[in-house]
Amino acid sequence: MTAQDSPSRSLQLTRDGQLKHFLTLDGLDRSLLTDILDTADSFIEVGERSIKKVPLLRGRTVVNLFFESSTRTRSTFELAAKRLSADVLNLDISTSATSKGESLSDTLLNLEAMASDMFVVRHAQSGAPHFIAESVTPGVAIINAGDGRHAHPTQAMLDMLTIRQRKGSFEGLRVGIVGDILHSRVARSQICALNTLGAAEVRVIAPATLLPQDAESLGCKVEYDMARGMKDLDVVIMLRLQRERMEGALLPSEREFYRLYGLSQDKLALARPDCIVMHPGPINRGVEIESAVADGPQSVILNQVTNGIAVRMAVMSMAMGGQMAERSQRQAEGERA
Amino acid sequence: MTAQDSPSRSLQLTRDGQLKHFLTLDGLDRSLLTDILDTADSFIEVGERSIKKVPLLRGRTVVNLFFESSTRTRSTFELAAKRLSADVLNLDISTSATSKGESLSDTLLNLEAMASDMFVVRHAQSGAPHFIAESVTPGVAIINAGDGRHAHPTQAMLDMLTIRQRKGSFEGLRVGIVGDILHSRVARSQICALNTLGAAEVRVIAPATLLPQDAESLGCKVEYDMARGMKDLDVVIMLRLQRERMEGALLPSEREFYRLYGLSQDKLALARPDCIVMHPGPINRGVEIESAVADGPQSVILNQVTNGIAVRMAVMSMAMGGQMAERSQRQAEGERA
Amino acid sequence: MTAQDSPSRSLQLTRDGQLKHFLTLDGLDRSLLTDILDTADSFIEVGERSIKKVPLLRGRTVVNLFFESSTRTRSTFELAAKRLSADVLNLDISTSATSKGESLSDTLLNLEAMASDMFVVRHAQSGAPHFIAESVTPGVAIINAGDGRHAHPTQAMLDMLTIRQRKGSFEGLRVGIVGDILHSRVARSQICALNTLGAAEVRVIAPATLLPQDAESLGCKVEYDMARGMKDLDVVIMLRLQRERMEGALLPSEREFYRLYGLSQDKLALARPDCIVMHPGPINRGVEIESAVADGPQSVILNQVTNGIAVRMAVMSMAMGGQMAERSQRQAEGERA
Repeated sequence: MTAQDSPSRSLQLTRDGQLKHFLTLDGLDRSLLTDILDTADSFIEVGERSIKKVPLLRGRTVVNLFFESSTRTRSTFELAAKRLSADVLNLDISTSATSKGESLSDTLLNLEAMASDMFVVRHAQSGAPHFIAESVTPGVAIINAGDGRHAHPTQAMLDMLTIRQRKGSFEGLRVGIVGDILHSRVARSQICALNTLGAAEVRVIAPATLLPQDAESLGCKVEYDMARGMKDLDVVIMLRLQRERMEGALLPSEREFYRLYGLSQDKLALARPDCIVMHPGPINRGVEIESAVADGPQSVILNQVTNGIAVRMAVMSMAMGGQMAERSQRQAEGERA
Repeated sequence: MTAQDSPSRSLQLTRDGQLKHFLTLDGLDRSLLTDILDTADSFIEVGERSIKKVPLLRGRTVVNLFFESSTRTRSTFELAAKRLSADVLNLDISTSATSKGESLSDTLLNLEAMASDMFVVRHAQSGAPHFIAESVTPGVAIINAGDGRHAHPTQAMLDMLTIRQRKGSFEGLRVGIVGDILHSRVARSQICALNTLGAAEVRVIAPATLLPQDAESLGCKVEYDMARGMKDLDVVIMLRLQRERMEGALLPSEREFYRLYGLSQDKLALARPDCIVMHPGPINRGVEIESAVADGPQSVILNQVTNGIAVRMAVMSMAMGGQMAERSQRQAEGERA
Repeated sequence: MTAQDSPSRSLQLTRDGQLKHFLTLDGLDRSLLTDILDTADSFIEVGERSIKKVPLLRGRTVVNLFFESSTRTRSTFELAAKRLSADVLNLDISTSATSKGESLSDTLLNLEAMASDMFVVRHAQSGAPHFIAESVTPGVAIINAGDGRHAHPTQAMLDMLTIRQRKGSFEGLRVGIVGDILHSRVARSQICALNTLGAAEVRVIAPATLLPQDAESLGCKVEYDMARGMKDLDVVIMLRLQRERMEGALLPSEREFYRLYGLSQDKLALARPDCIVMHPGPINRGVEIESAVADGPQSVILNQVTNGIAVRMAVMSMAMGGQMAERSQRQAEGERA
């Protein structure tokens, strides 16, 4: 199966190839990812103005539908939506709505009936945003803000934007991803994006206990040793050690993890001298990264945050555009029929 | 006492008969309810636009004052206010403000002093919104979003809008309300609205344990048997079985309730063939309604949700208009004096 | 050290003496405080309009960063920001973000990277807003919404605005502050403001257990006896008895406190006949103030609330103006260099 006819592609794109949902990077081709990066680039400038607003989603209703709470991610989507001039409704479903015993699908039908235009969905279960996109009323766009261990595509795209800003292009780049690959939805999305955009090599660096069984089938090389893993890297992406996500004792201790895989200045020196350091945040200083590295000249961690707003503005406005194009098409067809 | 001189009427209307608070349907006449429905009709179209906004409450401050939390109802009022271009402040008083021991009346005086224009009030105690409307500073509109067992007038009006859309008018209609009448503020408001708007018959259908002692004095017929109750109905309104509201064992079991009063396809077949099915939501599938009915062609449950935004926009903008008219009048009188 | 060269002054003001942060009244001179009051006066009128909005912060992102939750104070800042047309992001850090173990400084760096323009900070620790202002990216304004026992400068300025409205000026005024001076950040800010603005006498009235050891060094007279303390007062400011803040038994009982220091009509009669009564709210009726006094003709307690919005609009717009002036200056210098 090629990317061109994957089910994810047909779910996410209009017949003309415009984005209408943003669920996963699977099935999206290089030209579409490049479009997202180019659009995001144009929004970077909006964040630097005094009046940080464009009217692209004016009068639209964006619902932040967080079944798993995350203040940080919710805030970036909320700011992105407001800078696009949308009205935002925050629903923290983990604490509220379904307490009356309503099913997910009934909750969604109700929100759609309130004339919502877009759901930004975060869910602990892999595939929940797909399920929602498959069943939602035509015209409503679904944006995945992280689902289970599956994907976190806006995080991956903000990482790609940050890499492109610093490296110019993806050609010839060697990128290492270090840490808990097994539990990381971010890593899955990053590997996919890097391969689609043409990176020369994607390398995951982790102990066997923090790797999925078929790691190489994700499209990456596997390296258990940090020193060998760092060699020749242009970009090193540290993952957050999600202590809350690890069930049972996969690691002897945090200190042991830091000794073996924590990014210290010594280990960073093994990479290329212009290697940039990335982290999706929030960082655990002294657990997966040394403070001197996180705050050092090779770190682009805060650029990632800034780019996060721009990338979210890009996918939100593009998906809304796709929905509108499809609606016009449906109307035109209705009139011809 | 006629509707014309009821205390609820004089509290809710300006001297010229314009709405200035919206607390209960008691004392409001057919022409005013029809005005609300007509105004709501005009807002239905706003929800279908890309830019779902009208400037009627621009620069106004609407405070959602929820002493009893309800994400669903609060969200519809929040969206309605934002589509009218108001600034919205959500206060969940059940968890916050009065924790410092401040009285309700002091909380209100403070919010009024912040130049609030409208309070949307939800309270577990019957009569709380009336109390507030009686004591509030002139110029501030009070909207009842549900008080104790007393009233839920915006819910009843969205039901009326849904019936009128489907049936054209109320003339000759037979409407059945099924379930926990005893604890339902919605049922009280619905019975009142249907009688005012001229329905031919309002029938409540429930076991004796879920009926108030003087049910018929509310202006309805009482029927204990579901099969007899469904006969000839044009509209059947199922109430939510509010398990959290029932104190003690008023019913043998949920299964028994469903067998006797749950709306199955079989029971629906006893009504008129074009009978519509309504429910205020959230629905308990398999407790008070069968899924095939809730999702079937006679169901208008999701239309009710859509109409809920339009009805709330209507009463909010009408009440604000009434307050402004009264203010102008007060100023004119002040100048003459 | 004169006010002119205090470290608080240089932290809060641009080189040209414009406000750029608002952290404390220490180091701010009479002309600046008067500017704030004059600006606030001009916003009073905005609160009386139907359209309560001015475009001064349009497209700006204001983050309410509450490390100590306070619905009341957060609401007034939220309304003030919205009336200035800003986009507002509410972050209740006490319950959320740092739960993932992120440091304060990392949380702030992240929020800055999201292109925030202003942080309104409430923190249980004295000095937290100073710390933030010292480390924040140039261009971001910090407003202190209460820090530990240290300061609550917007509360003090709304009190000053209320006094000036009623008394015309501060010249010759005798002002008494009654209650728990020891734990009150408000009292510290009030004493500083009254001295700077030229009040004739600031008197604190409290039992020794509720006074700091060096009370007189704050710039006030100390009086232990309420009857002597009330004599000749033009303004009496009652403090809230913060039961949650008192550790251990500093007082025999609330009843005993009320008998000795509670503001009854009898005690108020000992002050000047036109003495006004103030309280920062929420009031404890019958603990520090009698209801007849709180609701009586000399009370200006609700005027304080109204003035709170205007004062917050004033400091927010002035600080943003200072930041913009400084940015222009930096750019001009950059070009010359």
